[in-house]
Amino acid sequence: MLKDWMPRPAGEQNEQKARLKRSREELAALQMKLKENKLPVLVLVEGWGAAGKGSLIRSLIKELDPRFFQVVNMGRPTPEEQRYPFLKRYVQTIPEEGKIVFLDSGWMDEVVRQRQQKTIDSGEYELRLQSTEVFERQLVADGYLLVKLFLHIDRATQKKRLEALAADEDTAWRVSENDRWQQKHYGWAMDCFDEYLEATDTAWAPWKILNGGDEGGARAEAAEYLCRCIRAALAKRPGEGMMPDAHWPLLPMLPLSRIPLDVSLPEEEYRRRLKECRKKLARLHNRLYRKKVPVVILYEGWDAAGKGGNIKRLAGALDPRGYEVVPIASPTPPEKSRHYLWRFWTRLPKTGHIAIFDRSWYGRVMVERLEGFCTEADWKRAYNEINEFERELTQWGAVVVKFWVQIDKDTQLARFNDRQNTPEKQWKITDEDWRNREKWDAYEQAVDEMLQKTSTANAPWHIIESVDKRYARIKAMEIVIDAIERAL
Amino acid sequence: MLKDWMPRPAGEQNEQKARLKRSREELAALQMKLKENKLPVLVLVEGWGAAGKGSLIRSLIKELDPRFFQVVNMGRPTPEEQRYPFLKRYVQTIPEEGKIVFLDSGWMDEVVRQRQQKTIDSGEYELRLQSTEVFERQLVADGYLLVKLFLHIDRATQKKRLEALAADEDTAWRVSENDRWQQKHYGWAMDCFDEYLEATDTAWAPWKILNGGDEGGARAEAAEYLCRCIRAALAKRPGEGMMPDAHWPLLPMLPLSRIPLDVSLPEEEYRRRLKECRKKLARLHNRLYRKKVPVVILYEGWDAAGKGGNIKRLAGALDPRGYEVVPIASPTPPEKSRHYLWRFWTRLPKTGHIAIFDRSWYGRVMVERLEGFCTEADWKRAYNEINEFERELTQWGAVVVKFWVQIDKDTQLARFNDRQNTPEKQWKITDEDWRNREKWDAYEQAVDEMLQKTSTANAPWHIIESVDKRYARIKAMEIVIDAIERAL
Repeated sequence: MLKDWMPRPAGEQNEQKARLKRSREELAALQMKLKENKLPVLVLVEGWGAAGKGSLIRSLIKELDPRFFQVVNMGRPTPEEQRYPFLKRYVQTIPEEGKIVFLDSGWMDEVVRQRQQKTIDSGEYELRLQSTEVFERQLVADGYLLVKLFLHIDRATQKKRLEALAADEDTAWRVSENDRWQQKHYGWAMDCFDEYLEATDTAWAPWKILNGGDEGGARAEAAEYLCRCIRAALAKRPGEGMMPDAHWPLLPMLPLSRIPLDVSLPEEEYRRRLKECRKKLARLHNRLYRKKVPVVILYEGWDAAGKGGNIKRLAGALDPRGYEVVPIASPTPPEKSRHYLWRFWTRLPKTGHIAIFDRSWYGRVMVERLEGFCTEADWKRAYNEINEFERELTQWGAVVVKFWVQIDKDTQLARFNDRQNTPEKQWKITDEDWRNREKWDAYEQAVDEMLQKTSTANAPWHIIESVDKRYARIKAMEIVIDAIERAL
Repeated sequence: MLKDWMPRPAGEQNEQKARLKRSREELAALQMKLKENKLPVLVLVEGWGAAGKGSLIRSLIKELDPRFFQVVNMGRPTPEEQRYPFLKRYVQTIPEEGKIVFLDSGWMDEVVRQRQQKTIDSGEYELRLQSTEVFERQLVADGYLLVKLFLHIDRATQKKRLEALAADEDTAWRVSENDRWQQKHYGWAMDCFDEYLEATDTAWAPWKILNGGDEGGARAEAAEYLCRCIRAALAKRPGEGMMPDAHWPLLPMLPLSRIPLDVSLPEEEYRRRLKECRKKLARLHNRLYRKKVPVVILYEGWDAAGKGGNIKRLAGALDPRGYEVVPIASPTPPEKSRHYLWRFWTRLPKTGHIAIFDRSWYGRVMVERLEGFCTEADWKRAYNEINEFERELTQWGAVVVKFWVQIDKDTQLARFNDRQNTPEKQWKITDEDWRNREKWDAYEQAVDEMLQKTSTANAPWHIIESVDKRYARIKAMEIVIDAIERAL
């Protein structure tokens, strides 16, 4: 893409300025439309060192209202950030509805740099490309406008600029090790940029290459292009109806109605096996930490199925410094106004740690589906999005364990009544629980569909029969132990 | 405190276990009361390396519901974290109402370690103690229960434990450089611990010293103590009526009604000075970055006073990679359920960066006061809390600039009408603006009081006369330039 790209002839300066002024004014007006239309816009600005990314962004934002946009300078990942999937810190920056985020270098810079300097091999590189494809596509499918700009300059121009920056003590810090490296290995760096641009130039998020050597021209062109993209997105929401046709190899799952629930453990055996599990888990947790393996465990299940008690027993066997229980309630406004997976991305455990999700991203295909909190297209797309998300986790090296805690309708009724009639338990039961109970059949159907469509080999569902809570607790702990042991 | 402390004689093992069991059950029951009473509890567990902090916490949480507590292992500050005031990462962990956070080492560990290893001098140490006093007192005054435990062990016990940990490959990683250092310099380490405990043993957050050499005893005692503290806090909210009698040296401020507003700038002079300001700011921003000076600028002012446009001109002169505009709206639920300064602590700029707050923590003594979103005691206490907060910022090295953007009532009316009648501006005006306008006099009185009580030498208020917006913009920029120049 880069190699056969021809710069536009540089225009006349006054004409460039006039175009820029016009587009900037239009951008300011469009910004208010974005707000009204709740359109989130992510502008990724990539390019060579000293190509003028910073000043391009400065030029683009000149007439914008600073309350509704943000410029994020990503920099290189810190050691802390390196303990998460590489995309996490980019996911974290995605804008809320109606706002614009400008990224001064982003996931392209990070991945291409690793490729250029050979800190990842070609297999890892391919995985990064796959992750990027998923990330960009999911954003656009969710209605984000993603604009990707690449600022290109030739070797001589870069050289001249780096020298000028280095000569002034106030700007010398802007010349990085990597800039100097690029200048020295310009040809190879170019190969890598080109290859990456080719590989990630998609229909839903194409690249726009700009001539960084002609600053005025690049600014005018970028502003005009951004206006065009926003106008188009306002006219037709990006990604509308986008529904990738994915074929996941899925594990067969029994429908809930056919799962026998008459399994139980006598008290004495329960005590013995609980003790055993606790010992094993404590030891495994130390090894996980040492080997820096992250673990994601999630619990879904009927109200009153016994998730809380189950989690408590599991958590009680772990070192509290190395795990976190993440209760998932309704999303807060900042969460609601971003991609629905955002609040889970931002709560992942770091390497060596365990996160136990009490409810999870599966809310999308259960409660959000049934209560109409998202559109039909949203929840239908979500099965694939979730499978992709969980693949990100396991490719990153995480152990993913998913529990559906199962009881029958009569057992639920008995437990609801017990809660209602026991003062210390009353806080556990709300009117909403009773309302949800009335929709049992609809939920059961949604759960069956969810289990069918999201039980992958890397992140399979486990049914936890929980009429007998002792049985359920031991089963869950033994599955966790088994999954961790296999990963180590 | 530590030196003259006498351990209780170790009790009989079975008796300890029985006490522990009883207290744990009580804790589980109290946890539900916390939830009901919206009481937040922060338990700080400090002590010698290998004193058993981790296992003490494990023992305390055994019967707790993991959805309502969290264990946070602070570790040492990362380079990123070091670019903020040292307390920021602890402030970040404070619990929401109704929840418990256990900190496995916290601000004591960090400060004493610096003292022990002499990476701070005694002046800096004193400032840390002052910051700690403020932090702890403000939490308690806000209704937090703060429980501070210190696990003490003697030199021989520590030696034995460190050797045992090091001998097993799964636990060897737990022995840190610092643990070994402590063991080697036990006497001096003890002096430092003792001095810190003495200095921070306050009426509102006293220390409880536990004998880490007697594990069973320490666990039982800690659980009993925690129950006692929670029971007391449920009976009488901690910090109720706490109102420190602070005497801040304050700068004299004119009442708003006496500020002449008939100041203006002709268009031509405006253009010229704007250009000058932009040039100076761009240069200063580079120097700030290089010298790692953080800058906090905040805007308060009447609706339609011109804050937005003023911020836009200021921001437009800055490198977008180095500043952020932070718009402050109503707090989200997670924000509302913590100390009101929490959402500002978590949004501070890092060193070398600029944060421009569009509205700020002063909401407490204006809108929250007048609309009854907090109690009278809350907003009366806030003047002092805010002065203390801003002192934290300036002691950390930040430049703090505070603007009150002033117009008269007629000008506001003219601008409201203009907004109402101009389609592109209608989004800027809401019914709430009109409602607030009706309370102009009450607001003016509150603002006058705020200006009187929070204009300190380190963080003075500047009145920006904004009937003429050009004048206002230049004045604000020149004040920012002046403040930064003096800091550099």
